[in-house]
Amino acid sequence: MINKLVQKIQATGAPIVVGLDPMLSYIPQHIQEKAFAEQGETLEGAAEAIWQFNKEIVDKTFDLIPAVKPQIAMYEQFGIPGLTAFKKTVEYCKQKDLIVIGDIKRGDIGSTSAAYATAHLGKVKVGQKEYLPFDEDFVTVNPYLGSDGVQPFIDVCKEENKGLFILVKTSNPSSGEFQDQLVDGRPLFELVGEKVASWGAQCMGDQYSAIGAVVGATYPEMGKALRQIMPKSYILVPGYGAQGGQGKDLVHFFDRDGLGAIVNSSRGIIAAYQQEAYAKYGTLNFSDASRAAVEDMVADIQGALRGQR
Amino acid sequence: MINKLVQKIQATGAPIVVGLDPMLSYIPQHIQEKAFAEQGETLEGAAEAIWQFNKEIVDKTFDLIPAVKPQIAMYEQFGIPGLTAFKKTVEYCKQKDLIVIGDIKRGDIGSTSAAYATAHLGKVKVGQKEYLPFDEDFVTVNPYLGSDGVQPFIDVCKEENKGLFILVKTSNPSSGEFQDQLVDGRPLFELVGEKVASWGAQCMGDQYSAIGAVVGATYPEMGKALRQIMPKSYILVPGYGAQGGQGKDLVHFFDRDGLGAIVNSSRGIIAAYQQEAYAKYGTLNFSDASRAAVEDMVADIQGALRGQR
Repeated sequence: MINKLVQKIQATGAPIVVGLDPMLSYIPQHIQEKAFAEQGETLEGAAEAIWQFNKEIVDKTFDLIPAVKPQIAMYEQFGIPGLTAFKKTVEYCKQKDLIVIGDIKRGDIGSTSAAYATAHLGKVKVGQKEYLPFDEDFVTVNPYLGSDGVQPFIDVCKEENKGLFILVKTSNPSSGEFQDQLVDGRPLFELVGEKVASWGAQCMGDQYSAIGAVVGATYPEMGKALRQIMPKSYILVPGYGAQGGQGKDLVHFFDRDGLGAIVNSSRGIIAAYQQEAYAKYGTLNFSDASRAAVEDMVADIQGALRGQR
Repeated sequence: MINKLVQKIQATGAPIVVGLDPMLSYIPQHIQEKAFAEQGETLEGAAEAIWQFNKEIVDKTFDLIPAVKPQIAMYEQFGIPGLTAFKKTVEYCKQKDLIVIGDIKRGDIGSTSAAYATAHLGKVKVGQKEYLPFDEDFVTVNPYLGSDGVQPFIDVCKEENKGLFILVKTSNPSSGEFQDQLVDGRPLFELVGEKVASWGAQCMGDQYSAIGAVVGATYPEMGKALRQIMPKSYILVPGYGAQGGQGKDLVHFFDRDGLGAIVNSSRGIIAAYQQEAYAKYGTLNFSDASRAAVEDMVADIQGALRGQR
């Protein structure tokens, strides 16, 4: 799956991922009204609005991008109907040949991590039959519990040819509270990065490992250090755009050939029509605004990478 | 909610929580066969077997215990039907006046943590209506992302009178890989414990805070240290029984009055009938074995606490 991700990034020239993190406040009135008219102001109605919103954005952007990253929390908050919309979104994006990174940040111990890995990357056995519960291509994983919490995810990745992005240095302001604490003079996130590199050796693709890392765009210097520490790990970079990161901050997350990193933008793309820069598209054409925002983001990052070479 | 938890522990004399973590291999053949006969060897069939299994255990033990802790991963691996069984289990336990600790180990940043908190502890707004998506009483939270990842959960706890147990020192063998790393000569988990104590000051109940901690039974010396560092935080203690912890290891997790900690057992209770000690009950009476295992666990812990005073 990591080989496919690299190929798709090369084919599109777009080292980006669109974060499908729909809040109701991002969804145009006309979509909400239609969904509520059909299903009421219910969890089912909210889920229908989310699904229609996602579908239109995917239809307008899938040819430009390699991957999407639905944030499961945004669906989970609408209960079972919300999670049904999550599953439908994953399936639809895979039909469009997009790679799906489930942003689930799960992590537990032993058989519990194995159950999460089964849920999101693997197959579950019921009697003599097997099912794919959510079937993402990659998921994000929280490493706080250590190797025996992560290994069950890696085992499923090996069996199913899937991949992980493990939290190393997150993009939020207080990520340093624990992640930056110095251990023998070095920040904890570097230790976690070293572990990611060693876990990744179990799952090598052609050029990169299927075990990648999450490093926030908001910490470019740390991204530079981690790029060295984990030379074979793809880096998923959140925090671009709405959280403050820009193309020029991101060059050191990449390798010389422009591979090695994939940058996420969520609100900046899916709610682009709410920004002044894209207001001209109007609410009805919100997905055209998303397409334009994708094009601008790719140009920003590619421009920064070219400036670097 | 923390006051209610303390009251229920005092009323039952049972500082324990039953982990409703059903694996299909724990569920007696006769329950699986009935569910598969009705719904086929499908995710729905598996979810029905889980629900019937849980219901019978809850019916046989609810009068002895203050709380249950369903592990959502075990449901999530059966997809949407599995999560529907999770929700049904939460609702049923609340009808039985049990306190429900959702073992979800979620954790993210800002609005994403807020969405998880809404999903599991809060209310979500759809148009003019409000819904309770999963509605547990407490949830477990992963602190790796720092304060701004945890605060949205605390905010919902304040609004809804609910509570958290934050991972501090987990019970698994490799928990030390990151959690035990020395920062200025002290292990990281002590720093996390200090944060839990300071976060907890925002949500005080009568005697304890609504913001508790998870500390594994398998590390009794660390439990002793953390009991001092977080004097107002209830400690949820996993790792009893199947993972190797025993009553005598647990005394230092408790305060002098026998409060301050609640010990979880999952497989040791729900699959008690599979142990030699309870084999006499037979598979058909598996829930009687669970009841006996609850009684034995309470006696073990209370005996150890009495020995201490």
